[in-house]
Amino acid sequence: MKIGILTSGGDAPGLNAVIRGIVFTGLQVYGHEFVGFLNGWKGLVDDTTIPLTRHQIMGISKQGGTILGTSRTNPFEHGGAERVKTVLERNGIDALIAIGGEGTLAAAKRLTDAGVRIVGVPKTVDNDLSATDYTFGFDTAVQIATEAMDRLRTTGDSHGRCMIAEVMGRHVGWIALHSGMAAGAHCILIPEQKTSIEQITEWVTSAHDRGRAPLVVVAEGFALDTMTDVHSERGLDAFGRPRLGGIGEHLAPLIEERTGIETRATTLGHIQRGGTPSAYDRVLATRLGMAALRTVLEEHWGCMVALRGTEIVHVPFEDALGKLKTVPQDRYDEARVLFG
Amino acid sequence: MKIGILTSGGDAPGLNAVIRGIVFTGLQVYGHEFVGFLNGWKGLVDDTTIPLTRHQIMGISKQGGTILGTSRTNPFEHGGAERVKTVLERNGIDALIAIGGEGTLAAAKRLTDAGVRIVGVPKTVDNDLSATDYTFGFDTAVQIATEAMDRLRTTGDSHGRCMIAEVMGRHVGWIALHSGMAAGAHCILIPEQKTSIEQITEWVTSAHDRGRAPLVVVAEGFALDTMTDVHSERGLDAFGRPRLGGIGEHLAPLIEERTGIETRATTLGHIQRGGTPSAYDRVLATRLGMAALRTVLEEHWGCMVALRGTEIVHVPFEDALGKLKTVPQDRYDEARVLFG
Amino acid sequence: MKIGILTSGGDAPGLNAVIRGIVFTGLQVYGHEFVGFLNGWKGLVDDTTIPLTRHQIMGISKQGGTILGTSRTNPFEHGGAERVKTVLERNGIDALIAIGGEGTLAAAKRLTDAGVRIVGVPKTVDNDLSATDYTFGFDTAVQIATEAMDRLRTTGDSHGRCMIAEVMGRHVGWIALHSGMAAGAHCILIPEQKTSIEQITEWVTSAHDRGRAPLVVVAEGFALDTMTDVHSERGLDAFGRPRLGGIGEHLAPLIEERTGIETRATTLGHIQRGGTPSAYDRVLATRLGMAALRTVLEEHWGCMVALRGTEIVHVPFEDALGKLKTVPQDRYDEARVLFG
Amino acid sequence: MKIGILTSGGDAPGLNAVIRGIVFTGLQVYGHEFVGFLNGWKGLVDDTTIPLTRHQIMGISKQGGTILGTSRTNPFEHGGAERVKTVLERNGIDALIAIGGEGTLAAAKRLTDAGVRIVGVPKTVDNDLSATDYTFGFDTAVQIATEAMDRLRTTGDSHGRCMIAEVMGRHVGWIALHSGMAAGAHCILIPEQKTSIEQITEWVTSAHDRGRAPLVVVAEGFALDTMTDVHSERGLDAFGRPRLGGIGEHLAPLIEERTGIETRATTLGHIQRGGTPSAYDRVLATRLGMAALRTVLEEHWGCMVALRGTEIVHVPFEDALGKLKTVPQDRYDEARVLFG
Repeated sequence: MKIGILTSGGDAPGLNAVIRGIVFTGLQVYGHEFVGFLNGWKGLVDDTTIPLTRHQIMGISKQGGTILGTSRTNPFEHGGAERVKTVLERNGIDALIAIGGEGTLAAAKRLTDAGVRIVGVPKTVDNDLSATDYTFGFDTAVQIATEAMDRLRTTGDSHGRCMIAEVMGRHVGWIALHSGMAAGAHCILIPEQKTSIEQITEWVTSAHDRGRAPLVVVAEGFALDTMTDVHSERGLDAFGRPRLGGIGEHLAPLIEERTGIETRATTLGHIQRGGTPSAYDRVLATRLGMAALRTVLEEHWGCMVALRGTEIVHVPFEDALGKLKTVPQDRYDEARVLFG
Repeated sequence: MKIGILTSGGDAPGLNAVIRGIVFTGLQVYGHEFVGFLNGWKGLVDDTTIPLTRHQIMGISKQGGTILGTSRTNPFEHGGAERVKTVLERNGIDALIAIGGEGTLAAAKRLTDAGVRIVGVPKTVDNDLSATDYTFGFDTAVQIATEAMDRLRTTGDSHGRCMIAEVMGRHVGWIALHSGMAAGAHCILIPEQKTSIEQITEWVTSAHDRGRAPLVVVAEGFALDTMTDVHSERGLDAFGRPRLGGIGEHLAPLIEERTGIETRATTLGHIQRGGTPSAYDRVLATRLGMAALRTVLEEHWGCMVALRGTEIVHVPFEDALGKLKTVPQDRYDEARVLFG
Repeated sequence: MKIGILTSGGDAPGLNAVIRGIVFTGLQVYGHEFVGFLNGWKGLVDDTTIPLTRHQIMGISKQGGTILGTSRTNPFEHGGAERVKTVLERNGIDALIAIGGEGTLAAAKRLTDAGVRIVGVPKTVDNDLSATDYTFGFDTAVQIATEAMDRLRTTGDSHGRCMIAEVMGRHVGWIALHSGMAAGAHCILIPEQKTSIEQITEWVTSAHDRGRAPLVVVAEGFALDTMTDVHSERGLDAFGRPRLGGIGEHLAPLIEERTGIETRATTLGHIQRGGTPSAYDRVLATRLGMAALRTVLEEHWGCMVALRGTEIVHVPFEDALGKLKTVPQDRYDEARVLFG
Repeated sequence: MKIGILTSGGDAPGLNAVIRGIVFTGLQVYGHEFVGFLNGWKGLVDDTTIPLTRHQIMGISKQGGTILGTSRTNPFEHGGAERVKTVLERNGIDALIAIGGEGTLAAAKRLTDAGVRIVGVPKTVDNDLSATDYTFGFDTAVQIATEAMDRLRTTGDSHGRCMIAEVMGRHVGWIALHSGMAAGAHCILIPEQKTSIEQITEWVTSAHDRGRAPLVVVAEGFALDTMTDVHSERGLDAFGRPRLGGIGEHLAPLIEERTGIETRATTLGHIQRGGTPSAYDRVLATRLGMAALRTVLEEHWGCMVALRGTEIVHVPFEDALGKLKTVPQDRYDEARVLFG
C-alpha cells in the first residue's frame, strides 16, 4: 500500500510527530510506502513530492514546524478533485492523509465526496475544532504564553504597572482562557465575551487596589462591546477591533487613561506556534498519527481522528466542520471568578 | 461556612493551585472561612492550623510543593475518626477537603463512613488512580522526564552509547510510557510488562544496528521477567528487582555485557515532582480545586473530584480505590510499535 | 552600621539577587542593619522605607523584578542632595547602595560630590555600561531572545517565510548581537551599524537562495541608513526610525515587497526583562551585591562594582558614565561573517 | 587550504557551535576545505572521515553533542605522531583543529612537538582548565543544575526534608559553586575543600533551625575530611570517597542519622552535559571556533584559543596543561558566607 501525506495551513508544534507516528508504524508493521507532498495542497496539485523513508523521520517528533512544509493553498482553486485524483493516480497512491485545520478538512470532505480515499488529522493551535477534546499544538501554545506571563508579572510588580499580554485566538479564547487561568490573570478577554472598557477598568482597578500589578490577557480576536468615540479616535472599527496593530496595544492607552495606572502591552505572536512541542503535544500527535494510519487500514474514508477523554477515535469530517468550538459560558464563568 | 484543607502524601506540582482554586472561590464568591492543617493528617490529629486568607494564596499557583506542608501520617494510627471529629469540632469546621493519593482517599472514605463531612481531591504524580483521566503533577513529571531524555540523547549519539533513563512509577508505567513516546525511546520498560533481558537486548541491538544511540526508559518499579544467576549476582531479588540502588543502574551492566555497547544510566528522581507546574497542571489543579468547593456546597460527602474528558465531575471514593490504574495492553502495544 | 538600599530604573532579572547578596552578608557576617527605600529614588525623597530582614530576603534570588519596587524618579527634581541627606540622617543611615542604570549612577555621582556616602551597582539589561564586562539581566535577556528565535525559526522553515525578531537595545546592539549569533540569524541589525534596505534585502535573498528561511534580528534602536520616499510613506522619520510601532513591524513589508518572500515580525518586548534570572545572572548579581557591601566597608564612596574577567572590582562612577558601551566594529564584523 | 577537525573526550554543549564557527567562516570567507575525523582521535588514527560542507553544519549550533562523534582514544596508544602525520598527509590536510579537554590538549602538544600543525579548542564542562576564564558547556551545566535544585527545593520545603543534589565535578567544584550560589544552597561541598561530617551537620541543622529545608550541593569528587568507622561501614574508602554509588547517596544517611532530618539525594548525572546549549555557550563556542580558524591562518601552531574577559586570545598549550583550575579560597569563602 502507498500512502500520501500532506500538512496544510499554519504550522503547529506536533506536526512532525504526527508524520512520524504514521510513517514509522506503516513502515515497521505493515511495510507500507509513503510519499510526502510538499507545502500542503500546493504540493499535491503541483505534484511535488518526496519519499518518506525511515531516515527522514528519524528524531523529528521533537522538532517544531513540519518537514513537509505548508501553505494555505486551496486545491479547489487549482484543479479540484480531478487534479487531485490525477496526481494521486500518477504517483500510484492508494490513500491520502491530510493534516490541517478547518479549511483543509473542508477540502478533504469535498474530495471524499468526489471519491478520493482520504483521512484527516485535525490541526489547530487555537483548539477551535469541534469533535475533538484537544488538538496538538494547543498545549505548547498555552505553556509558552503562561511562561511569558510569569515573566511579565515580575515587571508589572516592580513598576506597579498593568501588563497586557495579547495571545493567539482569532475566533475563540481557549489559549487566553487556559494561559490566563494558569498565570493568575486578573482579567481574561476572549472573542466569545464582548466586554466593555468600563468593566475591564473595574477589574484592573480592583486588582490594583488589592496591591497587585494587574495582569490582563487578551485573545487577538477580542472586541470591545461597543464602539465609542474614544475607540474611533484610537482606530477601532465599528466592531470594536483595532484597524491597525493588535488589540493589546489599543487597550493599553484606554486602560491607562481611565485608571491612571501605567499600562504596557506585549504581543506574543509567532513564538506561540513554533519550536519544540511539549511532551503532551508529542504524545497526542504521535497517537493521532498512528490512529490515522489505522483509520486508513480500516478504510474509514471521510473521517478524521479525534481525542475523546484518553482515547483516540475517528469521526466523520462533517462532525468537525461548521461548528467552531468556542469557550462555553460555564468555562468562562469559572475563570471569571478568579478575576477577583 | 468554615472549611478545613489538608495536603497529604508525596508532593506534586499543582497542590498550591488546588488550594488557591478552593480558597479564592470560597472567599470571593461565598464568603467562606478557611483553615489549613499543617503537614497532612498530622496537622489534623495534632490540631496545628493556619488561617488561609487571600494574602496567603496570592501568586501560589505557579509554586511547586504545598504551602501547607505534607506528611505520610495515617490518621487511623493517631486517634482515628474520634480524634478527627474532635479537632474539626474544636475549630468549628463544617467540612474538610483532603488532597492526597490513594492512602489519603482510603482514610477519607473511612472517615466519611464515620460521619465526617469530607470531600477529596486526587493527587498522584504517577497517574495511577482510577476514576480520573489524569491527575495534576503527571503532566509536569512527563515534561521534565522528556526534556531530560532529549538531553541524554545527544550524549548517547555523540559517544555511540546506550542511555538508560529511570523515571518514577513504582507500580504503574504511565510516566515511562508518555515520556518514552515523547522522547522517541527505543524501549520502554514498565511494571505492567515483565520483560526478559534478552528482549531488551534485542531492542537495544536493533536500534544500534540502525545507527541510533539506543534510549531505554525504565519505570522505577519495573522488574525483569525471571531471576537468573546473573541477576542474583548483580543483587536482584527473586522478583527481578534490584536489592540496592535503582533498576536503571542494574540494567546498565547487563545490557553492556550482552550487547558490547557502552551503557550509562541516569536516575531522574525527585526533580520529576518538584518545581513550577506546567500550564496544563495549573489549569487542571485550579479547576479541581474549584470543583471540590462546589462538591462541598452540594454536600456530596464521600466523593472526590475527577477529570473526565474536558469536564470535572465528582465520583464516590470507592470508585477510585482498590483499582490501580495500570497501563492497558493496547496502550503498551501502541508504544511498542515505536521501539523499532 | 545601618545601610540603605534602593533599586531604580527599568527592572532587570537579578535585582533581588543583588539585594540578597548585600543583606545576607551584612546581617550574617557584620551584624549590619538594612533599610530598603521603596520604588527607587522616589522612596528616598518621600522617605518610604521597609526594614530588610533575613525573612524578607529568603528565597528571593530566583525571583525576577525587585522586592523594593522601582521608578524613574530623579532625586534632583525632588529636593536633590539636601533632601537625600535629610532623609538618610532621619533614618540614621550611614551609607547608601544604589542599584541602577546610567541615570542612577549619574545622580549617585552628584550626591557623592555633595558628600553623601554612596556606592553603586550597575544595572542595564542592554549591557551598555562601560567599565564592566557584563551587567546582570543581559544573559537572561539573550537567553529568552534566543529561545524565542529558535521557535520562530521552525515557523519560518515550514512556511518558507522570512522571520524578523525585534529585541531590546535602544542605543546599543548587544542583545541582538549575542542572541542573533546564538540563534544563527542571517542578518543582525544594530543601532551602531546603519544599514540600507538594499543590503538587508541582499542578505535575506541570499539565505533564501541557499534554501534557508531567513531570520533577521533587529535591535529596537536600529535605523535604516537613509530616508527614502518609501520609508516616509511607511511612517519612518528622517532618521529612518518608525514613527509608530516598532522597527521590526516596519521592516517586514519593506523586505517582503523587495524580495517577494512572505515576511513576519515579532516584537519580543517586555518578556526579555522579567522573570526568573538565568543561573549566570544570579551568580553575577549575588557577587556584585557582596562586593558592593565590601566597597561600603572599605569606604570607597563614589564607586560602583564591576565585572572584569572573573573578578569583581570597584571603579569610580565617572569611569562608567558618559561612555555608552557600544558594539565595537570587530565584534560586528565577526558576527557579520555568519550572515552568509 | 584543507583543514581537519576532531572532537575528543566527553561531550559538552557547544561542540557543534565550535564546528560551525570554524567551518562556516572558512568556507564563506576563505574558501577552505574541511574534513571531519569521526569519534575523536580514533577517526584520525583509523582514517575515518566525512567532508564538512555547508549543508552539514546547517542549524547545528543549537544541537547538543557533536556531529563528529567522540571517544576517549589516545593517539599515542595507536601509532602516535607518525600515524597521525601519515593520515593527515594521505588526506592532504594542512592543519588540524582538535577540540577537547586536558588529555586532548596534552596529545596535541606532543604532536605539535613532533611537527604536526595543530591548534586546540579547550573543552571541559567542569571548567577546570587554566588559561581560559570559562569553557563552553559549563554555563549550560550550571543552568541545568540550578533549575534542578529550584525543583528539589519545593519538595524539601513541603516535606521538611534535607535535599542533596550531586553535580558534576570530579576534581574541581566550579559547577557546585555556581549552581549552589544560584540556587541558594545552605552548604556547598567541593573537592578543593575537605569538610567534616560534623561541619556539614552543623550547616544543615542551622538552616533547619531557621525554618528552611536544607539544600546541600555536592560535587561528585568531594571527599569527607577523615575516614571514620561509620564511613567505613557505609563503604567509604580511606580518602572519604564512596566505594560504590555516588557521594550524594552516601551522605544522605550520614546526615539523616546525625540531624534526625529526613534526607534525600539526587544525582543529576548525564543530563548536565547533553542537550541544547545555553545562549551563552553558543556565543562563546562560536567565537572560539572562529578564533581557532584565525589562529590557524596566523600559524600559531601549538596554541589553543581562550576566553580572557570579553576577548578571545590564543595561548600555548603548556599554559593550560598541568595546572588544574581549582576553586580558589576567596571564591569559596565568598560562597560560604551564604551558607548561613
